[in-house]
Amino acid sequence: MEHLAPLDNLVAALSRLPGIGRRTAERMAMALVQDDKGLMRILANVLLEADDGIVSCERCGSITLSGVNPCELCLRPRRDAHILCVVESPADIMKIEESGGFQGRYHALMGRLSPMHGTGAADLRVDKLLERITSEGIEEVVIALGADVESDATASYLREVLATRSVKVSRIGFGLPTGSAIEYSDASTLARAIQGRQEMS
Amino acid sequence: MEHLAPLDNLVAALSRLPGIGRRTAERMAMALVQDDKGLMRILANVLLEADDGIVSCERCGSITLSGVNPCELCLRPRRDAHILCVVESPADIMKIEESGGFQGRYHALMGRLSPMHGTGAADLRVDKLLERITSEGIEEVVIALGADVESDATASYLREVLATRSVKVSRIGFGLPTGSAIEYSDASTLARAIQGRQEMS
Ligand SMILES: [Zn+2]
Ligand SMILES: [Zn+2]
Repeated sequence: MEHLAPLDNLVAALSRLPGIGRRTAERMAMALVQDDKGLMRILANVLLEADDGIVSCERCGSITLSGVNPCELCLRPRRDAHILCVVESPADIMKIEESGGFQGRYHALMGRLSPMHGTGAADLRVDKLLERITSEGIEEVVIALGADVESDATASYLREVLATRSVKVSRIGFGLPTGSAIEYSDASTLARAIQGRQEMS
Repeated sequence: MEHLAPLDNLVAALSRLPGIGRRTAERMAMALVQDDKGLMRILANVLLEADDGIVSCERCGSITLSGVNPCELCLRPRRDAHILCVVESPADIMKIEESGGFQGRYHALMGRLSPMHGTGAADLRVDKLLERITSEGIEEVVIALGADVESDATASYLREVLATRSVKVSRIGFGLPTGSAIEYSDASTLARAIQGRQEMS
């Protein structure tokens, strides 16, 4: 079988999705091409719809409908408006919302410091964060970044920048994930868990 | 975060792809929404292109460019035109082509007999197969279907139907996959391997 250009283009586009390797993209493309229920056109249409209908919240950086900006979370009155959770991306906001563990507002940096990927402080939404701290009267910033070197660097940078403001700055805890055993934990997780020990009352 | 309808629709469409669970679809959708390189629109466009540009070959059932029908494989002169490999789908044709193990022509049934999925003989491209056997002077049919109950039933049905024609009918061999050990093979694979033993010369 000769290569069909439209099929190759489809495989190439699907391969750009994170976690989708060439083989998976090929399988997905063939499933789309062989589908007899119009899935290819349906998928194209929902992509166009999403591209038109979803925008970034000008305030928190999360995603929102193009007609609802600032987003619903930024405006919801029952949430604590003085505590801000700083995350990397809108996906992180969704994860934390699902957990039900936070009731304040959010701020997505849209990245983290990464010399390797050429992401510097100017690429993150830090100016907007400082502006919000002033204009919204933020009293506490909870840094909810991951447990890796780049997240550590980003958290340190934020702590430094925020030191000039009268806000309490904290970072989410690290340690053993729920349900895990000491026996099967890696050294780094254990070290951070011990470092992050909390007094029992 | 409230559910955004365009995002939900995107997740639903992606979930319809085989092997893509809800979680993966959600991750893919968020990656698309958060992508700042226009991937969402690129993907929509290649899908529309593929939907317009790729059609089924009227002869073998494989996929082909809309302007090249019958497909390039059906027309390529150097292939043995008297031996036909019967497969389930265009994807199977691509796999066999990649293997380099077959030099004849193909015929895709577009399915297999499956009472569970409501696929009967009339849903397969069997009439077209019989027509081709006559019009193309086919001398041998190689049934390249999988090693499962539905494929077995489909192969038996084809053998029956083809018994009225003067064609040689064979089915691809079953047994141990290359590189596998007896010790780690399952009972069914071993049984079929022993059944399919071939005399050594
Ligand atoms: Zn917002
Ligand atoms: Zn063809």
